[in-house]
Amino acid sequence: MTTRVGIIVLSGTLDKVLPAFVIGTTAAAMGMEVGMFFSFYGINVLHKEKYKNLKVAPVGNPAMTMPFPVPQILTVMPGMVDFATSMMKNMMKKNKVPQLEDLIQQAIDLDIKLFPCNTALQLFGYKAEDLLEGVEKPVGASTFLNFVNQADKPIVLNF
Amino acid sequence: MTTRVGIIVLSGTLDKVLPAFVIGTTAAAMGMEVGMFFSFYGINVLHKEKYKNLKVAPVGNPAMTMPFPVPQILTVMPGMVDFATSMMKNMMKKNKVPQLEDLIQQAIDLDIKLFPCNTALQLFGYKAEDLLEGVEKPVGASTFLNFVNQADKPIVLNF
Amino acid sequence: MTTRVGIIVLSGTLDKVLPAFVIGTTAAAMGMEVGMFFSFYGINVLHKEKYKNLKVAPVGNPAMTMPFPVPQILTVMPGMVDFATSMMKNMMKKNKVPQLEDLIQQAIDLDIKLFPCNTALQLFGYKAEDLLEGVEKPVGASTFLNFVNQADKPIVLNF
Repeated sequence: MTTRVGIIVLSGTLDKVLPAFVIGTTAAAMGMEVGMFFSFYGINVLHKEKYKNLKVAPVGNPAMTMPFPVPQILTVMPGMVDFATSMMKNMMKKNKVPQLEDLIQQAIDLDIKLFPCNTALQLFGYKAEDLLEGVEKPVGASTFLNFVNQADKPIVLNF
Repeated sequence: MTTRVGIIVLSGTLDKVLPAFVIGTTAAAMGMEVGMFFSFYGINVLHKEKYKNLKVAPVGNPAMTMPFPVPQILTVMPGMVDFATSMMKNMMKKNKVPQLEDLIQQAIDLDIKLFPCNTALQLFGYKAEDLLEGVEKPVGASTFLNFVNQADKPIVLNF
Repeated sequence: MTTRVGIIVLSGTLDKVLPAFVIGTTAAAMGMEVGMFFSFYGINVLHKEKYKNLKVAPVGNPAMTMPFPVPQILTVMPGMVDFATSMMKNMMKKNKVPQLEDLIQQAIDLDIKLFPCNTALQLFGYKAEDLLEGVEKPVGASTFLNFVNQADKPIVLNF
């Protein structure tokens, strides 16, 4: 029985995107076939320039651990998003969690199909040539669902 | 082999609700049987009045694209949620993405089962008659899970 | 045909964690085998002390219903997260929705496997002995995916 894992990435923040790739690359390394569909804010993950600037948001996220107590009101001060993002990146680097760049490359090396959503491209005004090399042609949700549904055991997750 | 797609809608913001319906209606148009379960904030989607006022939140969402740079602190100013919401609605209209109203109607036309969660109704103090016509009777999570599990290939997503 | 439900908990806020447990315990009570994988902020749910202090965030959440209108800017005032959290807890208590403590105990009683993610432990600097009794040994994502994939019908959800 074949298993196919489909991962929908709708969020454009690192606290969603990184786990999506960790699950995807783990499944692929276990021998499952994996396809990832990038829509809405998630399309930025496949954009040549934008993927370098994905952020983590401390605002509205009381689960975010800060090294010192930060009153909620300070989390909206200019600079806090950048601060939280670099803090998380350092924490992950220190603990040898792979960075987004490495995870995208791993995904391509493991033959994970990276599907850009064509509606999202249109919404953000991006062109196919703005996207990273190695991704699939832009498709609609039906191509992604069809990919997953061809397996005996389809698993779909969304981030 | 039959495929059933179950979609759990727990969020009440447009950036989650619209993709949920896009995936659901796409799956149904492809011939899959689809059921959507609306719980927590998601119950508002099926409320006769509330569904018209769902919003998009720019606060805490650094992936939200604004037409001009907005310092994080300004995103909590009165008016910003409404501004972001109308901006997104316009962007989607311009790109011919269907509006929520159309998507709900499409879902009903495609025989998607829209299950209101009875606990959520109770939590928000809504009555069955406050809900849109064409939705199922309020049920618990077990009815929804049972619907999905009757297929050979169950797929469940949550938004 | 066996069904296994895998639930990934990446969020550490009550508005995600409670629904995750409600779905999990419902599935287990229906006879499905259930495993829950706690990673990223979700690891706090299994922490002996931290799980008592999970919060609900009103900031950035325009779907949050307040008993009176609250301008968006006030939702970042000190105290609002605590206020929203205690309001939600009261609302749930009044409506006899089980509290997190009860749901964790129910999960253990129903033989739901509670897997702590070992990378998340490392990221937050927690030790295995900081975790609640009755949880599994810390594992990686592959152990969790393998658990789910052993069924004829794997269902995976993430919160």
